[in-house]
Amino acid sequence: MVIPLPDGLATPTLVVDPDVLDRNISQMAEASRSQGFALRPHAKSHKCAQIADRQLRAGARGLSVATISEAEIFARVGVDDLFIAYPVWLDADKTQRLRRLADDVVLRVGVESAEGAQRLGKAVRGSARPVEVLVEVDSGSHRTGVRPHAAGEVGKAAADAGLDVAGVFTFPGHGYGHDAQARERAARDEERTLSEAAQALRDLGIDVRVVSGGSTPTVGRWRPGEVNELRPGVYVFNDATQLTIGTCGVEDLALVAAATVISVPAPDRFVLDVGSKVLGSDRSPWVTGHGYLPQFPQGTITGLWEHHAVVRLPEGVRGPRLGSLVAVVPNHICTPVNLADELLVVRDCEVIDRWQVTARGANT
Amino acid sequence: MVIPLPDGLATPTLVVDPDVLDRNISQMAEASRSQGFALRPHAKSHKCAQIADRQLRAGARGLSVATISEAEIFARVGVDDLFIAYPVWLDADKTQRLRRLADDVVLRVGVESAEGAQRLGKAVRGSARPVEVLVEVDSGSHRTGVRPHAAGEVGKAAADAGLDVAGVFTFPGHGYGHDAQARERAARDEERTLSEAAQALRDLGIDVRVVSGGSTPTVGRWRPGEVNELRPGVYVFNDATQLTIGTCGVEDLALVAAATVISVPAPDRFVLDVGSKVLGSDRSPWVTGHGYLPQFPQGTITGLWEHHAVVRLPEGVRGPRLGSLVAVVPNHICTPVNLADELLVVRDCEVIDRWQVTARGANT
Repeated sequence: MVIPLPDGLATPTLVVDPDVLDRNISQMAEASRSQGFALRPHAKSHKCAQIADRQLRAGARGLSVATISEAEIFARVGVDDLFIAYPVWLDADKTQRLRRLADDVVLRVGVESAEGAQRLGKAVRGSARPVEVLVEVDSGSHRTGVRPHAAGEVGKAAADAGLDVAGVFTFPGHGYGHDAQARERAARDEERTLSEAAQALRDLGIDVRVVSGGSTPTVGRWRPGEVNELRPGVYVFNDATQLTIGTCGVEDLALVAAATVISVPAPDRFVLDVGSKVLGSDRSPWVTGHGYLPQFPQGTITGLWEHHAVVRLPEGVRGPRLGSLVAVVPNHICTPVNLADELLVVRDCEVIDRWQVTARGANT
Repeated sequence: MVIPLPDGLATPTLVVDPDVLDRNISQMAEASRSQGFALRPHAKSHKCAQIADRQLRAGARGLSVATISEAEIFARVGVDDLFIAYPVWLDADKTQRLRRLADDVVLRVGVESAEGAQRLGKAVRGSARPVEVLVEVDSGSHRTGVRPHAAGEVGKAAADAGLDVAGVFTFPGHGYGHDAQARERAARDEERTLSEAAQALRDLGIDVRVVSGGSTPTVGRWRPGEVNELRPGVYVFNDATQLTIGTCGVEDLALVAAATVISVPAPDRFVLDVGSKVLGSDRSPWVTGHGYLPQFPQGTITGLWEHHAVVRLPEGVRGPRLGSLVAVVPNHICTPVNLADELLVVRDCEVIDRWQVTARGANT
């Protein structure tokens, strides 16, 4: 069992093992430090002030966030160095909010279009502190981000708009491959495209200080060199996807959903009171079900509804009794955390703390 | 366009068309009434006091809910007749909470095991009002619920535990088939298994008053007869799944996510600032992407991350400009509503109200 669950939990609920969490945080901090990378973990995976605090105390330079509202919430709990790793589009409301942020904290924002850069420049003109921008590059995910050679054009627009162009960033989403080779290739793509983009900025006379990459699967796969900042997120908890693609072991899982067996319709099947409204519905092509069961590693969650998980067991494997507690490791940790109002912190079968998911639902 | 979106929305956000909503509510109420069915809509789809109120004013007898906490929240806003359509397993905390509910409202609870019924009986012994139970039957979803012939055994345990056994219920989840025949078959399975289960209770001398079936896809497909209560949920808003399986038309869609175009990397591709943390990740085998775009019906959301939706367009179809507003109809409405803190009510391109999602996250 990953986290021994206390009796009497009101299920379903999310439970954190603080010792595994702390170990994950310090290992990543140490790995980054020893290789000379700055660490700017992505806070969207935990959305939690207590965990942000642990990351910063372990040596993270600041946090990455996905939205202005996440930035606002972490600024409010005292984080003073934030990177909105997103090509934010500023309407009237967001312009005002971003401007307030720029006055309050050391702020860095992603851009990937000349128009976006111009709006950002207008929004923060005359702010109390200069706002840095990083140009987003597509390293192979084909989501947002420009091709590396086009980084110059966006960087120039940003500089013309009065912004401090500090460098480039990317998200290597294609690193979520089942095999180590895919992750290796993604890490190489990352290095190559970031280098090309950085060069495109240098060609314009821009002093490139930040070259930022990396999600949990590709971290640790770079040769120190051009890339100088990491932005992993999931590593604090890990999840069934990371377990399946081999970036963590069972002993590195720091969060589970605690559920109760509500039905045992047949010897090879049982049903838990946990569903997509707690676990999320994310399911990468590499995982075999809707979550991993440490107590029943041969079991598969074959069906997930909003409030039910149906688990199938191979013949001969004994299932749990009606009413017993079962732990489920979510497929992708970022979405279940965003569904929860709080995380229960459990040590030695006792709830020792409750952490509010402060930035839950902070999507704008 | 389904709901014309006002400028200046802070995206992403969920937007409701109150007129389509009211029409959906009154049509379902009228269809149930005219065929002699009692209507007890499932509130997990909207989780919203204002919508519950509309359903009750249109003639719903009470609400169905999935959890004790949903029941507590709707009781608090004045709903006094609630069915927890779930085989609730009572630990110490839930025992206390359920007992308080039983004192406060007309309460009905699902059971599907003798042990569950015994615990429930103990929990509500001596409560201010008698608690009714319905035995859950598996009509083909193979989730929770007993086979119809086993309903007698569970019903007897419930009666022996001092509970008022009022009847049987089922969830015809296999009605979510792509073709009308699948829905027709699911409706027949529902009728047949509910009838058999009701008979099993009658054979024990139990007066079966409630025979409750039905989710949005199978509603309207029954011959009035044994089934006498409906529990649809999704129909208030409808969604891309209902559209695909043909249980609603585009004109019946009452909720969209409003998103902004944040990137146009190529003429056949654009990216929206809406992801799985707003839309949910549910994707039935019948839908072709991660949501339906009324403004771009030929577009497909081919990639969904937490804060990004990548839309592909067929050659020759003109995409939107950077910064423009685009509506997305979620695949399955129940999970996005549960991610949102509020719903914006929009009429004639104006936000006329904001409804709190009162029962958001009420999972225990």
